[in-house]
Amino acid sequence: MPATVENYDIVIIGAGPVGLVLSTCLQRWGYKIKHIDNRPEPTATGRADGIQPRSLDFLRNLGLKRQVMAHEPAKVYEVAFWDPGAKGIQRTDTWASCPKFIDARYPFTTLLHQGLIERVFIEDIEKNGGRIQRPWTITGFRNDGKDPTYPVEVQLAKVGGEASEKETVRAKYLFSGEGARSFIREQLGVKMIHKDPIAHVWGVMDGVVKTDFPDIKMKCTIHSDAGSIMVIPRENKMVRLYIQIASSTDKDWNPRKSATEEEVQQHAKNIMKPYSIEWERVEWYSVYPIGQGIAEKYTLDERVFMGGDCCHTHSPKAGQGMNTAFLDAQNLAWKIHHVESSFAPRSLLSTYESERKLIAENLLNFDAKYAKLFSQRQPTAGEIGNAGVAHNGAPSDDEENEFIRTFKASCEFTSGYGVAYNPNLLNWSPSHPVQSPLFLCYPDTTTLRPGRILIPATVTRVVDANVVHLEQEIPVNGSWRLYLFAGNPSLTSRAVADFAKELTAKRSFYNMFERKDVESVSHHERYNPHSHLYTLSTILAAPRKSIEIASLPPVLARYRDLVFADDVEDARVRGAKAAAHKKMGLDEERGGVVVVRPDGYVGCVVKLVEGGETCEVLNGYFGGVVGRELGGERAVL
Amino acid sequence: MPATVENYDIVIIGAGPVGLVLSTCLQRWGYKIKHIDNRPEPTATGRADGIQPRSLDFLRNLGLKRQVMAHEPAKVYEVAFWDPGAKGIQRTDTWASCPKFIDARYPFTTLLHQGLIERVFIEDIEKNGGRIQRPWTITGFRNDGKDPTYPVEVQLAKVGGEASEKETVRAKYLFSGEGARSFIREQLGVKMIHKDPIAHVWGVMDGVVKTDFPDIKMKCTIHSDAGSIMVIPRENKMVRLYIQIASSTDKDWNPRKSATEEEVQQHAKNIMKPYSIEWERVEWYSVYPIGQGIAEKYTLDERVFMGGDCCHTHSPKAGQGMNTAFLDAQNLAWKIHHVESSFAPRSLLSTYESERKLIAENLLNFDAKYAKLFSQRQPTAGEIGNAGVAHNGAPSDDEENEFIRTFKASCEFTSGYGVAYNPNLLNWSPSHPVQSPLFLCYPDTTTLRPGRILIPATVTRVVDANVVHLEQEIPVNGSWRLYLFAGNPSLTSRAVADFAKELTAKRSFYNMFERKDVESVSHHERYNPHSHLYTLSTILAAPRKSIEIASLPPVLARYRDLVFADDVEDARVRGAKAAAHKKMGLDEERGGVVVVRPDGYVGCVVKLVEGGETCEVLNGYFGGVVGRELGGERAVL
Repeated sequence: MPATVENYDIVIIGAGPVGLVLSTCLQRWGYKIKHIDNRPEPTATGRADGIQPRSLDFLRNLGLKRQVMAHEPAKVYEVAFWDPGAKGIQRTDTWASCPKFIDARYPFTTLLHQGLIERVFIEDIEKNGGRIQRPWTITGFRNDGKDPTYPVEVQLAKVGGEASEKETVRAKYLFSGEGARSFIREQLGVKMIHKDPIAHVWGVMDGVVKTDFPDIKMKCTIHSDAGSIMVIPRENKMVRLYIQIASSTDKDWNPRKSATEEEVQQHAKNIMKPYSIEWERVEWYSVYPIGQGIAEKYTLDERVFMGGDCCHTHSPKAGQGMNTAFLDAQNLAWKIHHVESSFAPRSLLSTYESERKLIAENLLNFDAKYAKLFSQRQPTAGEIGNAGVAHNGAPSDDEENEFIRTFKASCEFTSGYGVAYNPNLLNWSPSHPVQSPLFLCYPDTTTLRPGRILIPATVTRVVDANVVHLEQEIPVNGSWRLYLFAGNPSLTSRAVADFAKELTAKRSFYNMFERKDVESVSHHERYNPHSHLYTLSTILAAPRKSIEIASLPPVLARYRDLVFADDVEDARVRGAKAAAHKKMGLDEERGGVVVVRPDGYVGCVVKLVEGGETCEVLNGYFGGVVGRELGGERAVL
Repeated sequence: MPATVENYDIVIIGAGPVGLVLSTCLQRWGYKIKHIDNRPEPTATGRADGIQPRSLDFLRNLGLKRQVMAHEPAKVYEVAFWDPGAKGIQRTDTWASCPKFIDARYPFTTLLHQGLIERVFIEDIEKNGGRIQRPWTITGFRNDGKDPTYPVEVQLAKVGGEASEKETVRAKYLFSGEGARSFIREQLGVKMIHKDPIAHVWGVMDGVVKTDFPDIKMKCTIHSDAGSIMVIPRENKMVRLYIQIASSTDKDWNPRKSATEEEVQQHAKNIMKPYSIEWERVEWYSVYPIGQGIAEKYTLDERVFMGGDCCHTHSPKAGQGMNTAFLDAQNLAWKIHHVESSFAPRSLLSTYESERKLIAENLLNFDAKYAKLFSQRQPTAGEIGNAGVAHNGAPSDDEENEFIRTFKASCEFTSGYGVAYNPNLLNWSPSHPVQSPLFLCYPDTTTLRPGRILIPATVTRVVDANVVHLEQEIPVNGSWRLYLFAGNPSLTSRAVADFAKELTAKRSFYNMFERKDVESVSHHERYNPHSHLYTLSTILAAPRKSIEIASLPPVLARYRDLVFADDVEDARVRGAKAAAHKKMGLDEERGGVVVVRPDGYVGCVVKLVEGGETCEVLNGYFGGVVGRELGGERAVL
């Protein structure tokens, strides 16, 4: 007789990057999670290793960057291109991997083996009371709706366990972070679509080498008459080599083609001539076939979801797999949170697939283009110089040629800053159901773009005069981020007061989702004193010294750790009176309101005006997000 | 019958900041240490808490900054001054605590309780195989010279232990880091000299408060008609209040005057009116008398040394105690290391007292001045504005008045960047025994000053294109740091080749101290491939792309991780062709050689010329350090 079936908010299968990020977020926000993995231990060696600049922002926003950096990862700032020369390979050029025209806090790729990264998440999950159950696997599941609150039944079993080591649980959600070979995807009958019919067999080797090759600590693509290799530096004196072993375009193509460690090393030695290379130690070696595939669907019922490698596979060359997985999970986490907090209707969950599948498609298209770029002519130093060393943002248009444009687009993509979600109810656009002349539009009245990440800016925190990174000041807390760029206080005090008044008015988007325990919230609470769904920050275009938090309207003053002075110089907008306002493309005197989604992507940007209209427009926007009328009489919808 | 007496390189008494830093360094460099502390556990709460900007540089150089920051300390960027007003206290002004005219990487004070800082060192010591023996105390010692190698006999006993829990050991050195009440100092009969006859009784309270005082997260000095307080923010939502309870200038002065927790809180409430303050939790509370004292001697025999609070006590207001202790230990550590490595004669050890006692005297003088500044009129906003907001280095002279000069001098001192050792054999000056027109002198031909810290500079590491902090690239390894600023390679290739040739010539200062195992050193060794006493770094005034490490002379190329391109813009020398060269005041085309002591202080700066003369001058300089003739026929001495 089965005991009482245990209920969970979510069952997560697989503790790779996508499952761990989902678990980390939901564990912090108080959900009851069953998280299993079929491996007895976290990844011990090898696998993914590249954390892109945008992902490092995200890890910092989770408060986990320091833990990652404690492992002293390698950092890739530049990519070197080596090509066949008269006496073996020779360097053709080097490129910045995240050039200056991208406004990145961390313009480098961080290299660390996946297991160390996994451990950082696992420790955080455990700190918050969760755990990964190992080695357990999923044996069946069904969205049978027998319990309307926990509609999904999931069967689990210990890997190699006794007949009794089985469990049946019920859950609101089931998530597959199983990787490319997914039981759940197979059971659902979701097909992988192969974008590029060409498949490849790759060899990958992590180890410690002795070599006179000068760029062994750089990322390199090496083309020689003996074949091609990609070099990626690693933590702990290691280097990773990727070696393409076979392609489906080869005459004797065999997807099961393999190569021994020694064969690959000999291959590498031949390619790297006139330089020598010897292995002192090999930590990991693997050969695996890779095709470019994308899952047709990420969910069928908005109860059973998939993400990460389960949904998209591609070559490892651009180091995108783990990074895409991070953002899949981040995207899904807050949407589940908002639906389960009764903030948003269930239909919000449909945007997980529509947003993330687009990114995977872009990734596959990029992967194809990237591969092609490699096989084309190498650019000259002059062409790259313009793109790589520009100090003050984008070079002028006439300096650009076709190649540089392609290169730039690629850098933005590979750094993670190219992610751009399409217009929908979350990402405002001129085709959004809510319209108002107060919405500011790229590029005319703001440099911010809905569906894109918030532009970074350095400001002074008023309460303690610390110089801080504005975009990092609100942690990953599942809340919408409302940035009130308040312009020049002597000009906007009325507009700010009106905004604050409407914000706290009955049925406003802000007031409607007040915490039930609002009266008993600790005065130490920094981010969610009034609502779990919003965090408010005020940025004044004034010197810190001149700002008294107590003189702000109480709803803004309550967020005393999130009041900032826009008084720090920024080399990208030299001479600006208020650099953060300027970078956002907002009026330095009049400000504006920037609505940022819980995942850091811009939702909309609204003009700050006197009277209730700014808040009314937001009532309309959030009315669309939450699927009901907000703002009472004043509602726009 | 006593068992065989165990021999140690050093016995360290006390595991506060000074003892721990000494232990950390010597443990890393392979010394055999007996380190005891009479407390059963590290500091649990309270005590020192301020890490000054310069000390944070040092912690980073030890590779321990990340561990300190993991505790999320408070950071003080500004100091607010509160004075009596019509309705209670009011803010008069705020000042940057480390203003822009100081070229600091970390322009803030880091606040964290001493116990957490101690634990960071203890973990490092344990990682390197050492440990602190607790609770043990010293009961006797004698430099009896019975064993010429281990001349000091030390008796130790367990605190509250059995009669059998005693130990007698012999050591090369004995160090007292016992704090103000030192058994060793007393036994040696070394007197404390009281610079300022005025003594004070202070109360200090760490706790979590609820208050509407707006600057509770800032460092504040509050003067009110009801008395004075200093506010220091802390980690973990805490705040520290310092309250002066009595002074020897009071009519009813009593050095044993005390006050209860409640009395001090009531006192604080009265002072802070019209603001309210309530304590939610008090973590630590203490009342203690403090006088300004300095030990007459730091050592009598250069075998038994003292440092830290054992040698200097003063008010805690400026947060200097722990920072001075750090640098006492750092100064002594490398000198012991060099004597014990047979690099330098025993006389090097005399510079510990001469250098560090001067700093303690400066500290006491500063402490007296600082206290006086507090009781004087408060400056106007205009006066401070000039000093606090200057963006591009020092304001022009005519903007400065007496007060600002005093303030600036104080900021430099409190931030730790004011430490300036006097000329001696280590710190070259025009009165140094070795003279040559090739020595560069401040301010005419270099901005560097012997006896002062190396100026920070950002450069590109050639081997992996990482943008790095030059001054941090050589860790605390006990070695002299030779920075070859090589200027424009097309102009200096001959001078660089000549320098390298002379460096490796027989009997050169560099060659004379070659490692015995030089043939078997791993190719992974980054810092000491040739000698444990020198680390060499080359900085070329050229874009990274244009530099091939293999084209440098082999002795320089061997340090492949320490070859840098001086190609990063610096806002302090905007427009410079080679910002690092420029900041050091070196010729951007012709370069120069900067010799930095193992503790990061400049030793001398020498012109880079063709022929052997640059190296000859260094042979002369190091000849003075090591006390013998170097450089064979070419020697200058």
